[in-house]
Amino acid sequence: MSLPTQRTEPRQVADRVNHEFAEAAAILDEGLIAHVGFAVDGQPFVIPMTYAREGEHLYLHGASVSRLMKRLGEGLEVCVTVTHLDGMVLARSTFGHSMNYRSVMIFGQARWVDDAEEKDRALKQLVHFLVPGRNDEARAADAKELNATAFLSLPIKEFSVKRRSGPPQDPAKDMSVETWTGEVPLRVVAEPPVDDPTMQGDHTTPNYAIDYLNKRAAALKE
Amino acid sequence: MSLPTQRTEPRQVADRVNHEFAEAAAILDEGLIAHVGFAVDGQPFVIPMTYAREGEHLYLHGASVSRLMKRLGEGLEVCVTVTHLDGMVLARSTFGHSMNYRSVMIFGQARWVDDAEEKDRALKQLVHFLVPGRNDEARAADAKELNATAFLSLPIKEFSVKRRSGPPQDPAKDMSVETWTGEVPLRVVAEPPVDDPTMQGDHTTPNYAIDYLNKRAAALKE
Repeated sequence: MSLPTQRTEPRQVADRVNHEFAEAAAILDEGLIAHVGFAVDGQPFVIPMTYAREGEHLYLHGASVSRLMKRLGEGLEVCVTVTHLDGMVLARSTFGHSMNYRSVMIFGQARWVDDAEEKDRALKQLVHFLVPGRNDEARAADAKELNATAFLSLPIKEFSVKRRSGPPQDPAKDMSVETWTGEVPLRVVAEPPVDDPTMQGDHTTPNYAIDYLNKRAAALKE
Repeated sequence: MSLPTQRTEPRQVADRVNHEFAEAAAILDEGLIAHVGFAVDGQPFVIPMTYAREGEHLYLHGASVSRLMKRLGEGLEVCVTVTHLDGMVLARSTFGHSMNYRSVMIFGQARWVDDAEEKDRALKQLVHFLVPGRNDEARAADAKELNATAFLSLPIKEFSVKRRSGPPQDPAKDMSVETWTGEVPLRVVAEPPVDDPTMQGDHTTPNYAIDYLNKRAAALKE
């Protein structure tokens, strides 16, 4: 991801930062994993975690056995980043190459979710956030399972959104370089669902698992 | 990403950690961005960055104007994580839901690349790594551009690979739950290239930009 550079003849500002909640929420809702960063005695960790947005906070999910989750729950400063890579930007110079992306970075302290009732709600929210509709079919968690599950809650208060879109921004002097330039868009797609080989009986593939990403996006907007 | 859990009746260990260089290299070579974590005075940052693997080290790329890049170059401990999300795993219980993924996490100290010749080589390696073939067509960087570019070099020495694949791993007691179970595979695809509207003259879309991800994968294996 190219950080803003010193190019002297930009035709427009391609990379931009904002603090719009609606934009952050849209990026978070499209995402499925977050990269969660924190430091223990100066040693940084960046761990991919599942999460669910619920209003103005995130639930981060892990196993309660995890030592790192526990340290996080003690109020360590955390940085949670969710990034979508939207395309490669092929400029006229190697220096001008870039990527189109949308990224949100949230800073703050996470709260350890201790209450069993909130844990139950958080797990349902996680399943709803990842696979809307799935809570109606899967068996809900029992007490032992909730005990083995850990959630952290992080407010979406201190955050920034960074994004780049559009074609290369080559300086005027490069316009005569004889090469194709443009973008190669990238996209995440869901493939047809694969049956669990241990499935017993005759179960139709549920609607929410077919064309999953588009169905999910529509359901989360409801 | 569900961390290993306390499920008591696993049919097999679905999540596994290893330290195989070949596996780490394959995950890195498939990736286009890394999430780079470090802490300044206890404040963690997780920043998406472009990178290139070259043998047993990574070049991380940023703008030399970046204050954070400079701090990293002073030998701060860093954690670089690259993750591919391969699919959603829909189990019989909400608790059993998971994701299939491949992730590599590298720890260490990055070296600031000061030498202009190495910077030039690093930029070429970055362009080759991201868009094999592009160096032959794009204008190479001039001294001013190299001056405005920053690279960090990080050895791939202390790292771990974590991955999950396959169907849900429900316990025997859940086999009678009446629901469809299985995986929804996810994949990143490249769409047809989009011409830069400022392009002058008649330039054919280059071969490496068409079916870009598959061409890239094949070229990086050569």
